[in-house]
Amino acid sequence: MNEIRFGVLGTGGIGRRTLEHATAETDLTPVAACDRNGVAVREDGLDVEELLAATEGNIASGPDDGVTDGGTAVKQSGEHRGVAASRQGEQTETPIDDIIAVSGTLDAVLFALPNLEHDFIPRVADRFADAGYEGVLVDVLKRSRVIGMLEERSAAFEESGITFVCGAGATPGFLTGAAAIAAQSFVEVETVEIWWGVGLKSGYEDNRGTVREDIAHLEEYDIDAARELSEAEIEAIVDEHDGVIEFTDMEHADDVLLERAGICDAADVTVGGLLDVRSDEKPTTTTVRVTGRTFDGDHGTNTFQLDDATSMEANVNGPALGYTKAGVLRNRAGEYGVFGPAELMPRG
Amino acid sequence: MNEIRFGVLGTGGIGRRTLEHATAETDLTPVAACDRNGVAVREDGLDVEELLAATEGNIASGPDDGVTDGGTAVKQSGEHRGVAASRQGEQTETPIDDIIAVSGTLDAVLFALPNLEHDFIPRVADRFADAGYEGVLVDVLKRSRVIGMLEERSAAFEESGITFVCGAGATPGFLTGAAAIAAQSFVEVETVEIWWGVGLKSGYEDNRGTVREDIAHLEEYDIDAARELSEAEIEAIVDEHDGVIEFTDMEHADDVLLERAGICDAADVTVGGLLDVRSDEKPTTTTVRVTGRTFDGDHGTNTFQLDDATSMEANVNGPALGYTKAGVLRNRAGEYGVFGPAELMPRG
Repeated sequence: MNEIRFGVLGTGGIGRRTLEHATAETDLTPVAACDRNGVAVREDGLDVEELLAATEGNIASGPDDGVTDGGTAVKQSGEHRGVAASRQGEQTETPIDDIIAVSGTLDAVLFALPNLEHDFIPRVADRFADAGYEGVLVDVLKRSRVIGMLEERSAAFEESGITFVCGAGATPGFLTGAAAIAAQSFVEVETVEIWWGVGLKSGYEDNRGTVREDIAHLEEYDIDAARELSEAEIEAIVDEHDGVIEFTDMEHADDVLLERAGICDAADVTVGGLLDVRSDEKPTTTTVRVTGRTFDGDHGTNTFQLDDATSMEANVNGPALGYTKAGVLRNRAGEYGVFGPAELMPRG
Repeated sequence: MNEIRFGVLGTGGIGRRTLEHATAETDLTPVAACDRNGVAVREDGLDVEELLAATEGNIASGPDDGVTDGGTAVKQSGEHRGVAASRQGEQTETPIDDIIAVSGTLDAVLFALPNLEHDFIPRVADRFADAGYEGVLVDVLKRSRVIGMLEERSAAFEESGITFVCGAGATPGFLTGAAAIAAQSFVEVETVEIWWGVGLKSGYEDNRGTVREDIAHLEEYDIDAARELSEAEIEAIVDEHDGVIEFTDMEHADDVLLERAGICDAADVTVGGLLDVRSDEKPTTTTVRVTGRTFDGDHGTNTFQLDDATSMEANVNGPALGYTKAGVLRNRAGEYGVFGPAELMPRG
């Protein structure tokens, strides 16, 4: 595959790691990045090391000041905060517009932003479509309802020439991709059971947005209620669960994405897991179990397991960039609209 | 994806099942098939049911007549044998040339032939390239050395516009694809261990070519020696092993294909397994173990396991067609040359 030039919206945990990971890939050139207050664009490729060093610092809104980071915390270092502190960065009031302004040179843009306002990412995508962007947009969201909002925009994406890959992180991305592969033994998939474990002690600070999103999956909460929670309230929820929160029957996008990919009905997919924010050890082994019927009439369950030693972060990086590349291939083949990760897998 | 029109060379076990499987897919239209003595072409799509019914019959060269089926056994039914017995078929002395003659209307051609002459499939590919075929060629071979022969032809494939997908069956196809997915947790893959179990009692008749190919992997044999074996000699080898043959350090293409895909060095891949030709139960569970280092410095092993109830046949069908579709996507994007299945997986 030829060179892929990409930009990243957001330089929190996922954005930073994606930039870092991309430096190891000869075919990926990061050329633009932004956070809430700053933007950096280098046509010949960002100096990722400098950018990350400059933006690594104190979190502007910490856990104790009662202000939520909202997933868009800006790291402080030197006079400016965040991306603007980089030699390559500039302060801006309009970071996303600044990226859109140079999007004609980009093959892909990764949205490394939590979607705390429920339609935030779809609305950002609208702005790319309105600007006539031709290329790939990728998000790493988890929730089913966002897929629906994106699907409503399919016509606009197709008109613009956008291939939107949604949910390209660890889950649903990695795990639905694994399910799509595991499904290859079967002519009919009967159930897909996704069960994840995340130990997030040392990654907690960098992934507050993710934890908040997870809390929104608890039965007592929804995305709006979770957004309103102060850090202290989140800590109280964590305490209540002794640091280990169990999720069952989550509204995770895995179900609609597997249905979109023709693997099975959304109703046949169950998603649950354990989040431990007080240990880096995973509280349970992440497992994907795909049960189905073979062409010759047998029934069986294929199983994919991630080693407990692979962190949530490790399991986002590879898939996010892999699906970005796969999306670029589709885009170059003239396939526009909305795609789930499992749709990008080879499948008979 | 739009409609894919494809042809099949060979109507043994793999060819038949691929045709049958394709009838369940709206985007796959089988339009041509041949065996040693017959060819069937229907521009508007083969009547697969009729073709399979007409060709299902006695194996022309059975286990007792001392003649090897060479993987190209022709089923007898009625006056003619094999494909020629179908209402859609004709007898021919030049089945492959007949398919090449209509290849301008084909997006893909599946080589469902064992490669008993070590360069047979590469030489057939040459004929497609010489004819200026523009499309996908797919094989389901296992042996490393064939990949090398195909690679030598890369320039010719590129000139013609051929995307050659090699090894697209259960192994190396399915299992290296699973390995590519499992590798996504890691920035460096240290080892890939592939261990397979096949129970082939009731499938033995249909898969003699495959068993012969497997025997060629035993330390005491090679591909030429295995080709020379009579059926009686093969039976004697099977007896010697009480029906269960163990393979270790096989010359399987998994290693070179994973290296081609940039997953790991070929030397880091080990392949082995157990073949039981006297039971349909798998003698061991097919397992892919991918061990690596994560970006954050941890080491772990991700595991993919196929249920013992999924037959070897079931595990060829889905991948072969899935990789065919993925190959067509590459071909339409102008990517020509030789591709292993793992190269067709999304990967960061």
